[in-house]
Amino acid sequence: MTDRIRIFDTTLRDGEQAPGFSMTVDAKLRMAKALAALQVDVIEAGFAAASPGDAQAVATVARNVEGPTIASLARAHEGDIRAAAEALKDAANKRIHVFIGTSPIHREFKLKLSREQVLEKIRTSVALAREFADDVEFSAEDAIRTERDYLAEALSIAAAAGATTLNVPDTVGYTTPDEIFDLFTFLGTAVDKGEDVIFSAHNHDDLGLAVANSLAAIRAGARQVECAVHGIGERAGNASLESLVMALRTRSDHYGVDTAIDATKIMAASRTLAQATNHQPARNKPIVGANAFAHEAGIHQHGILQNRATYEIMKPEDIGLSTDGIVMGKHSGRHALASRAKALGFPLEGEKLDKAFAEFKTVADEIGVVDTARLLALLEGLESRRSKRLWSLGKVDIRAPVNPTAYPVARVELEHGERGRITDLASAPGALDAAFTAVSQIMGIPARVDMLDMQYVAADPNDESEGEQGAAVLVEMAIEVDGELYTGRARARDILPCCVSAYIDAASNAEAVRRMRASAPAQAA
Amino acid sequence: MTDRIRIFDTTLRDGEQAPGFSMTVDAKLRMAKALAALQVDVIEAGFAAASPGDAQAVATVARNVEGPTIASLARAHEGDIRAAAEALKDAANKRIHVFIGTSPIHREFKLKLSREQVLEKIRTSVALAREFADDVEFSAEDAIRTERDYLAEALSIAAAAGATTLNVPDTVGYTTPDEIFDLFTFLGTAVDKGEDVIFSAHNHDDLGLAVANSLAAIRAGARQVECAVHGIGERAGNASLESLVMALRTRSDHYGVDTAIDATKIMAASRTLAQATNHQPARNKPIVGANAFAHEAGIHQHGILQNRATYEIMKPEDIGLSTDGIVMGKHSGRHALASRAKALGFPLEGEKLDKAFAEFKTVADEIGVVDTARLLALLEGLESRRSKRLWSLGKVDIRAPVNPTAYPVARVELEHGERGRITDLASAPGALDAAFTAVSQIMGIPARVDMLDMQYVAADPNDESEGEQGAAVLVEMAIEVDGELYTGRARARDILPCCVSAYIDAASNAEAVRRMRASAPAQAA
Repeated sequence: MTDRIRIFDTTLRDGEQAPGFSMTVDAKLRMAKALAALQVDVIEAGFAAASPGDAQAVATVARNVEGPTIASLARAHEGDIRAAAEALKDAANKRIHVFIGTSPIHREFKLKLSREQVLEKIRTSVALAREFADDVEFSAEDAIRTERDYLAEALSIAAAAGATTLNVPDTVGYTTPDEIFDLFTFLGTAVDKGEDVIFSAHNHDDLGLAVANSLAAIRAGARQVECAVHGIGERAGNASLESLVMALRTRSDHYGVDTAIDATKIMAASRTLAQATNHQPARNKPIVGANAFAHEAGIHQHGILQNRATYEIMKPEDIGLSTDGIVMGKHSGRHALASRAKALGFPLEGEKLDKAFAEFKTVADEIGVVDTARLLALLEGLESRRSKRLWSLGKVDIRAPVNPTAYPVARVELEHGERGRITDLASAPGALDAAFTAVSQIMGIPARVDMLDMQYVAADPNDESEGEQGAAVLVEMAIEVDGELYTGRARARDILPCCVSAYIDAASNAEAVRRMRASAPAQAA
Repeated sequence: MTDRIRIFDTTLRDGEQAPGFSMTVDAKLRMAKALAALQVDVIEAGFAAASPGDAQAVATVARNVEGPTIASLARAHEGDIRAAAEALKDAANKRIHVFIGTSPIHREFKLKLSREQVLEKIRTSVALAREFADDVEFSAEDAIRTERDYLAEALSIAAAAGATTLNVPDTVGYTTPDEIFDLFTFLGTAVDKGEDVIFSAHNHDDLGLAVANSLAAIRAGARQVECAVHGIGERAGNASLESLVMALRTRSDHYGVDTAIDATKIMAASRTLAQATNHQPARNKPIVGANAFAHEAGIHQHGILQNRATYEIMKPEDIGLSTDGIVMGKHSGRHALASRAKALGFPLEGEKLDKAFAEFKTVADEIGVVDTARLLALLEGLESRRSKRLWSLGKVDIRAPVNPTAYPVARVELEHGERGRITDLASAPGALDAAFTAVSQIMGIPARVDMLDMQYVAADPNDESEGEQGAAVLVEMAIEVDGELYTGRARARDILPCCVSAYIDAASNAEAVRRMRASAPAQAA
């Protein structure tokens, strides 16, 4: 049996059909190109018969994306199969993916068909699909809850009718690793098929087991897994592509198989998806979350600085991420501060380190994460140049245009320790962009917003103080400057000043890194 | 062997120490109360020696939370153990949780101790901890990468010194279900311990396998699992409490064990955590994500309406969520629309259904998800009362106070199909709250903001149109009205009007449900 696992990506089909993740045709095309760069084997671009928009998306991807096989889903109906074939006609490599429910509950309640009628539909629909494509996948929907012998019969019929991939989906996310291992082992002997016809697993994450179940299916002989970037999909979604690929790679000693994926393109695909769907992955999402390679706790930072392997089994650069993973925050210890300060050109020891650490803890308690710019300001402060080089927001006003088709104008005033107050104006289609543009003009840091996430912090009804305890907003953002990402954050009562302050924070980080590189080209940030 | 699995929750320790998830002492206390309502067995409230803030949090939880055992983490140092004992002194049931790294890489690079020195530290520190508490847990940090015989020796020494729980953490998230099953099976025979001393698993999710690994450890004899709500924790976090508990419950046929958790309190704990950390779980997070019980695709909605079991293995009410799970959006089909319309008092068939469906698809393509209020407006429109009852935003202005200690004043103008334009003023510590209060005054819907999430939609640089394609913001929010949650969303160029529109949308949903109940008390929304 070959040790090559095919990655079938369904971000654009199962993923896109989940509430909150729908994408425009343009966004789907951008995402498909990111998947092609990842070198997935198959891109399921949509379900052509579902809507004219879906058909258009499949056709657009088929026409414009090179490398992977392009697939469309189709029910076991003539109309669906013809719609899939039509949408796929310009693809260099195409696959029609035919499915029908095989479990008792799907046959009885959804399809209202007998066992024999379902088998007949499989036979005729797979044969029809083969008239349009050499590459046909058959899925027995809700396979996990299907009678085993009947499932083996259904898959054997699909193979006889010309299916080249036999997919065994856990449609409701119910199975366990042991159970699916047992099922695929059974199917390996019970299904009558040619050598080159492969089994595929498609697992849903309702119980948090989609990745583990996919790996168990692979151990039992599956040679294709269906997955999606960030694990998006119906309900709790599908197996996450990035977890699956990195588990197979990191534990190749255990699984003994690999994929064709270029893992260094994982972060780029993750960012493309976040932008296309306006959903960032959770901070603690494996592989691609903001915290996946971050270490803030003192004890962990100490270990990481001694030897990365103490707390890391993968390297950030393996997935195309450039970071040293050290996040300076309230849980960081003296070791981490000393190491980061040294990298910034401030060797600290003894009393000086004590003093810096005390100041650092105060700042960290106040704002959470201490970025490079703030840390630099703090270290410079120790040499009595405190905060001299920091920018902060003075005022921001928006003037709505009198002519409703004109753009709003933002007037931004920044304050700088050495340069004093500087004001500038800018206009853009939105007030936010106008304000960001004005900040960039003042600071001389042209940037593109990569991500902005705002959260509302409810007021504590028991708090009577006039301080920062009332309702507020927290903004976290990332901007791209000269091809690199810088993050910023701010907390404030009001939303516009908060967004602008976060932008200033991010731009200050870019500026600090630029300054540091200019003064010590050999040292990394 | 007992079939009762103990749930050790580390949301407030391993979870809280991850970047972006830090909590105030008050927030920790609220979260601890939610965990007590869930009936977890142990709450790890912090790491008392890490900082005065951590010690205070442990002491506050110990003093104020009844039910679960309260634990503090401690390194195998006298100072740490005394700090833990001091912080825990008011707890009715307390546990000291002592840990030290046992793997070669931790011994050599982090601790710089020999094998014998590590064993000696285990012996003395566990014995010391037992002087302060009858319940002592010992963790062999990085157990998964520790030599097996040495690990068994270390755990035997801990048991002999008085540890009552022996924890075997996969500190770096490296193991697989098969491997951890094998390890726990080995330890079951190799470790010398009393019957009442139990094994515990603590898995990290770096490869997306934390839940599966925890379940495999249970199958091999572990009787405690360490986990966190939303799976927060170092890097990719810990096993998610909610997934673990629901997997054991849903697949009790397979695992044959259960926990003492009151699962109907899961949603409440999830909301408490989201508010305490300002991080919503991802839409596709198993069990608690917004999509976990949502069905938008036509084919799935059709199945769900015939029989929920077609696509669901758990019921939303099992975890304390009240929803029918049907999300009306661009992927929804005619069956779902007809069913939802009927529930709203509009039986639709034939041509009328065709017309409604065509209008619905247009609205769904424009705004994504169609909430109850919008759907009602659409249905009423078919009977030529179109949009008569809908509120929309006319204008919103903020007047900054002249006196800087005074509150800003929001002036909001709403438009209503029947009632025309209505304007009101309100003031609050923040502009956003002032605007929300003014909307509530006008609509007569008092509400509390439960969640507000804003995303920035970058402008498409290739788009020259003046339409909605430029930079914009998307706001999704939830408000609580009379103890029930209602969601709203909006997309606009500018942030303040967008937030206010989303608030109006949510309040309109509350109003629609209220109206519907008044006219047909027997029908649910």
